[in-house]
This record gives sequence, C-alpha cells and structure tokens, in this order.
Amino acid sequence: MVHGVVEALRAVLDESRLVTDPDSIGRYAHDEAEWAPFGTPAAVVRPASTADVATVVATCAEHGVPVVPRGAGTGLSGGANALEGCVLLSFEAMDRILEIDPREQLAVVQPGVVNDDLRAACREQGAWYPPDPASAPWSTLGGNVATNAGGLCCVKYGVTRDYVLGIEAVVGDGEVVRLGRRTAKGVAGYDLCGLFVGSEGTLGIITEITVRLLPGVRAPERTVVGYFDSLVAAGEAVAAVTAAGVVPSALELLDRSCLEAVDAWKNMGLSAEADVLLLGRSDTPGAAGEDEVDTLVRCFDEAGATWSARSTDEHEADALFAARRLAYPAFERLGPLLTEDICVPRASVPDMLQRIEKAAKAHDTRIANIAHAGDGNLHPLIIVPAGDDEARTRAKQAFEEIIEDALALGGTVTGEHGVGLLKRRGVHAELGPTVIGMHHSVKNALDPAGIFNPGKVFGDPDA
Amino acid sequence: MVHGVVEALRAVLDESRLVTDPDSIGRYAHDEAEWAPFGTPAAVVRPASTADVATVVATCAEHGVPVVPRGAGTGLSGGANALEGCVLLSFEAMDRILEIDPREQLAVVQPGVVNDDLRAACREQGAWYPPDPASAPWSTLGGNVATNAGGLCCVKYGVTRDYVLGIEAVVGDGEVVRLGRRTAKGVAGYDLCGLFVGSEGTLGIITEITVRLLPGVRAPERTVVGYFDSLVAAGEAVAAVTAAGVVPSALELLDRSCLEAVDAWKNMGLSAEADVLLLGRSDTPGAAGEDEVDTLVRCFDEAGATWSARSTDEHEADALFAARRLAYPAFERLGPLLTEDICVPRASVPDMLQRIEKAAKAHDTRIANIAHAGDGNLHPLIIVPAGDDEARTRAKQAFEEIIEDALALGGTVTGEHGVGLLKRRGVHAELGPTVIGMHHSVKNALDPAGIFNPGKVFGDPDA
Repeated sequence: MVHGVVEALRAVLDESRLVTDPDSIGRYAHDEAEWAPFGTPAAVVRPASTADVATVVATCAEHGVPVVPRGAGTGLSGGANALEGCVLLSFEAMDRILEIDPREQLAVVQPGVVNDDLRAACREQGAWYPPDPASAPWSTLGGNVATNAGGLCCVKYGVTRDYVLGIEAVVGDGEVVRLGRRTAKGVAGYDLCGLFVGSEGTLGIITEITVRLLPGVRAPERTVVGYFDSLVAAGEAVAAVTAAGVVPSALELLDRSCLEAVDAWKNMGLSAEADVLLLGRSDTPGAAGEDEVDTLVRCFDEAGATWSARSTDEHEADALFAARRLAYPAFERLGPLLTEDICVPRASVPDMLQRIEKAAKAHDTRIANIAHAGDGNLHPLIIVPAGDDEARTRAKQAFEEIIEDALALGGTVTGEHGVGLLKRRGVHAELGPTVIGMHHSVKNALDPAGIFNPGKVFGDPDA
Repeated sequence: MVHGVVEALRAVLDESRLVTDPDSIGRYAHDEAEWAPFGTPAAVVRPASTADVATVVATCAEHGVPVVPRGAGTGLSGGANALEGCVLLSFEAMDRILEIDPREQLAVVQPGVVNDDLRAACREQGAWYPPDPASAPWSTLGGNVATNAGGLCCVKYGVTRDYVLGIEAVVGDGEVVRLGRRTAKGVAGYDLCGLFVGSEGTLGIITEITVRLLPGVRAPERTVVGYFDSLVAAGEAVAAVTAAGVVPSALELLDRSCLEAVDAWKNMGLSAEADVLLLGRSDTPGAAGEDEVDTLVRCFDEAGATWSARSTDEHEADALFAARRLAYPAFERLGPLLTEDICVPRASVPDMLQRIEKAAKAHDTRIANIAHAGDGNLHPLIIVPAGDDEARTRAKQAFEEIIEDALALGGTVTGEHGVGLLKRRGVHAELGPTVIGMHHSVKNALDPAGIFNPGKVFGDPDA
C-alpha cells in the first residue's frame, strides 16, 4: 500500500516535488517536540502549487494513506510529526507573498511564508501583521495558522486566529475550497475558516491564507523592568496591572532558573540582581503611553519590586527582551527540553507558579519558567540531562502533574503551542467525553477518508 | 406528532414555562424580518434554567420536532422565525448576569441578558463590553452570539465573535456541554465555541455565555462631521482615512434619503446641508487622538467635503449620532422595510453605492443607505408603500440584484445581520456547492436528529 502511494505520486507529480531517499526524508520526520513519537514517511512532497496539493490529497485518499502537513518544523507538541508510512507535505516551495494591500488592510500569502518575512514586507507598505510567536524568525504562516500561534504581543493584539480572514484549503478527497472572506466583516454561514485555524492539519490542507493587517504606524514601545524576590510578588504585580485597566503590549516573566541559564550563556549578570524579572511594554502613543508606563512602575513597586524602572535606553530595553528570547535556547544547551504551555486565569499565576515549583521538587526535576504573564500563559521548561532515562521518566510525571494543576485552577492544557501528540491526554481531561465526541463527529464529517493527520489532537493517547 | 410534543412537554416542564394559547404564541412567531416566511409554533417554552432547555431538546429529539431559539426578536433575516409546528425557545426568563470579573476581564451571562444592560453593569465595575449593534437597547446576548452581531464600534474593536470566550450549550439529544474557555488564550481542540458563534441556532441551543471584557476607562470620543455632495466623494474620504493609517472608533455614512427621512420626522435640517453625511469618531486618548481627528478632517476635505468640522460640542455630536440611530425607525414610519446588509472591500464602497442607486432606478424602488463605511458594511434600506404588492416584488428584485453586485465586487451577502431565511440564495451563490456541502456535513454531524433550527442559513432556498 505504502509503495503503491509513492509510485502513484511519482506518476502524477513533477519529479522535483517528490523526496524519497531515506536521509532526506529523515529531516522531515519530526518537529521540535522531540519527546513525542514519530514514524518514517513513505515520501515527502514539496508542492509548488495548490494543484500539487490537490493531487497529493486525491492520491492519498485513493490509497487510504495519511497526509501530514508541515511548516518550518518549529512546533513544540508533535503536531507535524510523521505518522509511519504517511505522505508528508512540506511547504518550503510555496513561500510567496501574493498580495499586500494596505488600503484593504489585508495580505494574501502561501503557507510557506516565514512570519518575520511577512511582517517585514508589510512594514515596507505601511502595514503591520501583529502575531509574533517566539519562533517568528523561522516559523511559517501555514504552521502559525494550523496551531493558532500566540506570541508576546497577543496580550494586547490577540492571537493568529484574530488575524485570519480567509483560507484556501484542499479538503475531502482533493477538492479545493475557499473559506472565510476578504471583507472586514462577514457572517455568511458557519465560520469554517475559524474552525480550520488551530485544527493542526486534521481537517484539510491549507494552501493559501488571507490575513488582516493593522496600520503600520506604531509609536515606539516603552519598556518597564521590575526585579522581584518572589514569584508571588511578581504575580501580584501582574494582577495589579490588569486591575489598573492597563493593557500592555507585552508583559513577560522570567524566573531565577531562566536568568541563571541566560547568564551562564551570555553573562548578562541578571541573576545577581533578581529572582524574578518582569518585563512590561507599552506602545500607546503620547502622554497616555507615559501614563501607562507610570502605572506599570507603580504596580510593580506596590507589589514589592526590589527594583523597578522604565528603561530610558532603547538598547538596554532590547537587551532585556533579548534575554527573554534567549531563555529557550539557553536551556536547550543543557539537554533535551520538554516545553510546557498552560494558561490559567491571570489571578492564578502566582498559585500556578508555586504548584510548578512543588511539582519540580516532588519529581526531582529542574524546571524554569518563562511566561506571557499578562495572559496567564506559562511555559515551564522541563530540563533533563541528556541520556538520563530515569530523569526523563520523572520529567514526564512533572509534565502531567502541571497539566492537572492547570485544569484544577480553571486553566487550559495548551495556551498557544497546540495539542499535537504531547497534550492529548490533557485535552481528553479538559474537554470530557461528550465534547471529544463532537470533535470526532466534525472530523469524520469533513474527513470521511480519515487521511488528514489522523490521531493528532484528540486521538486516543494510549493508541 | 405536534400535539404529542406539547403533551410531552407539559408532562416534564413547570406549567409556568409553557405557552400554548394562540394569541401569546403569535407574538413569538417572527423577528423583524417580516418579509421572511414564518409558521406557527406548536408551543413556546420560556426556560428558567439550562435543565429546562435540556428537557425541551431531549423531548423534541424524541418527537423529531424542530427547536427554534429566539432572543429579543430584533433579527433582520428571519433566523428566529418559527417553523410550522416547532417548539420555540424564548429566553426572557434567563436574563441574569452571573458574574463580572474585571480582574480576569470577563463576564458570564445567561442568553436573555440585554446587550445594553451588560454594558451598563460592566461600566459600574470598571470594565467594557464593546460590541454595540444598533439593537443594543433591546437585543440579547444570546441573539448577538447566534448571529455574530456587529455594530458601530467594530471598525476598531471587532464583532461579537471577538469577545466570546466560551459557551454552555445543549447539543445532540439534550447533552449539556461547555465549549471554549475562561482563560485569555487556549488552543485545546477545535474552536467549537467559535463555530457556534454565528450559527443561528442550527447546531445547538446556547444557555450561557462567557465574554471577554476590555478595561472600562475610555477617553471621551471626539466626533468629526463631513458633508459631501456625492456618494463617490464620501467613499473617497473613507478610503483616504484607511490609507492614512487611522482606525476610527466609528465611521458612519448616511445618504440623502436617510437625511430627508430623519428631517421629515425630527426636523433636524440635515438634508438642506448635505447630500451625504459622514460621521467619524476617535477614542484614542490625548494628543494622539487630536492627531487622528486632524487626519479625519484632512481626509474629508481632500476628498471634497463641502463642509467638515470636529464637533466641539458633545451635545451636537450626540445629536448627529442620534440621526444615525434614527434613520432606521424614520424609514419604518414610511412602510415595510427590507434591510440589506452587504459588506464589500473598503475601496469598493463608492462603486457599490452607485450600483445600489442603479438598482433602485432599474426596479423603481426607493432605497436609502446607512453604512458602517469604515468596514465596507452597507445597509441599503428598501422601502415599500404598505399594501403595494407590485412594489414589493420590485423591491425583492432590487434586493437580489444588490446581493449579486456585492458578490461581483468581492464582497459578502451578509456583513453582520446573518442569513436566516432571507439570504439563503445569496449564501449558496457566495459559498458554492462544495462549501455548502461542508455545512451540511457539519450540521448532520452535530445535529443528527436534525432538530436545531432546520432549513435556516444554508437550507434549500426553494424548499
């Protein structure tokens, strides 16, 4: 069957589109969730057009072979991991920005366009595409849409879903459809476009994306820094910001472990100053922005900051946000990372951070925290020494315990990274059997051949 | 069968919940789209609780009887119109605001809560619920969510969908589920909550809604007024505002027919001054807001405004926006109204307005235009003298021609009012058979008994 599909693809696709040699295929087998299982694809196809994708889907439907779409492979949940014998669709050759229209405030892109490339191209035309996942220099719009990616600025500007106006997709057994719209508003039928956003490739293959843009003229961001000697105090500062009615353009938290890891790599001297670092930003223009910055400083101080200041130096501010961005690679140097991604009510951030500390102790596991604190979206980074299988087992236990704690606090098992393979157990616990049943019903209705990334997101985690 | 369901409901519901006398039932038979067909319900149920709704749905599923949900009946597309022999669910007894939490920036309401009542209650707690359909003094959150209602401020703040975090709903044959979340972010599974928003009661019955709030501290709005002697000039002013990178908090257009109708009723003297009135607002605080207002005035002038000014008098500004709100009732005085609701690319607003004028002439029909111009969302009001059946036929022809023109310009057949019964032909033309097929698949998957508002939105318009 598997060989059948490869030969069938060879018969209908341009030779240059098809990758079958084992070494090359191996590079496509998994995303950055290396803890998640993955198989070996029967073939990788790098489509050049929607027609290529339709051909692949029709062929796979005929052969009953799974299709797994893949962007840049920066995912952290295994959503793009290959299923054994699948056909993997990789979009590096569909990377064109088809249209940027500042007047209509929209852009049309192929799924392989890199997030930062779109933002840069929009900037040249006086427009702004806000969603800014930490993977923005590498991750693609197709992957961003498939996972409904978040980022730093979504505390004020929302997530990828809020910017997707329409998509073109290959569905069913190879039909090409357009879902959504190009207009500012529209309510013609079900929001099937929104249903595809965050569906991780389980409903069809996205071949074109129309995104909403904002005006490109932005005030320079002002940065506020707060040092705290406890997670609880920093959490209280976050709650105070919300209570004060301020919506910062970013509000990020790094704990002591993060600061030490960044220091160990880049010698920034942060961990000598603080146990917890809060970074706030305001992009509100003029005096109102000054007021916001003053409020942020006041909230930090009243919550017990050991030091706080607005950064008067743009380079210093950029350096501090660079520390935020460096936290993840700083830890990757230390061994395989298991990245958590939970979101809790904002007021529960201190409680959740304490529970994470407790889980780390209980399972003798090193856990550092970076957080989009203003959203209640926490990323505990679980670190395991390379090759230590016992530590790995303990880390997995801590991972599951943190998920249970997030649910106990009224949170969700994934704020922005998606479910993929790693969070399926958590999703079943969060949604319950009736809602999981609704997922299967929708999936079966739109994917009767069962070929689109089967088993991901809500599939049986024990299968 | 029908009598069977009424007797079955009588056996399981409190007597006070059930309405069966014909006079009372008649008041629930249709919404404000009186041009759309409607039948007589077998019974009206006014549930007091989610349990009541679940009981009704289970009973109707057992008897194969359609369930039609209804908010305040202010809909303009027939979405809430009774199907012959259906059970109509009216939510006036489920009108409690269950929670307002400014710290978590959310509110939880029953579906019968009136939009303006929620806004007022939020204001008292320092929070703001933005979506503001023109029906806000009467329409309910349940109806707003079912139709994904828009409004004046959505040019800057988005539509109802952008504020719905989660819902409780009765689905299938009476199961109660929670969809969505309470956290700021979350990507656990398909966005089934978003799928229900705008689904017009065809997938299940919404029994509780969790909405996102914004901080309640808002700068006072500044108003800019522009008089124009042509629709084209006004349309160019709208395009210039977008091109200038300004996102006003409202940008409304009234044409000569509107101004005359308001004058005829309220003697405001507007039609002596202008052929087209543009009303812009900015709620950006401080000097940046001043800059926005200056830009609006400059855009109006450069597009050829015969007069423009920022309103320095709050009462004057409120009076002008009152004229906007009065336009609809001013026309209702003149006879039955057929309200269009199309949305086109912003740059196509002048072209669309000219096509509407042409359709009015071709079909000898009086059409006035109010528009959320900043969104490209136009509301041609088609007026027919009471009792004139020929005029009514011509009006329907103009209605369909305007829909075709909107599609020809890359627009949608409904920007914010929903499809209901009136726009089904347009939706079929807009979406095409494959996407309509996806709608049926999803509907059948989630409503296997086929009882939830069947035939609405994407049902056969000729059935």
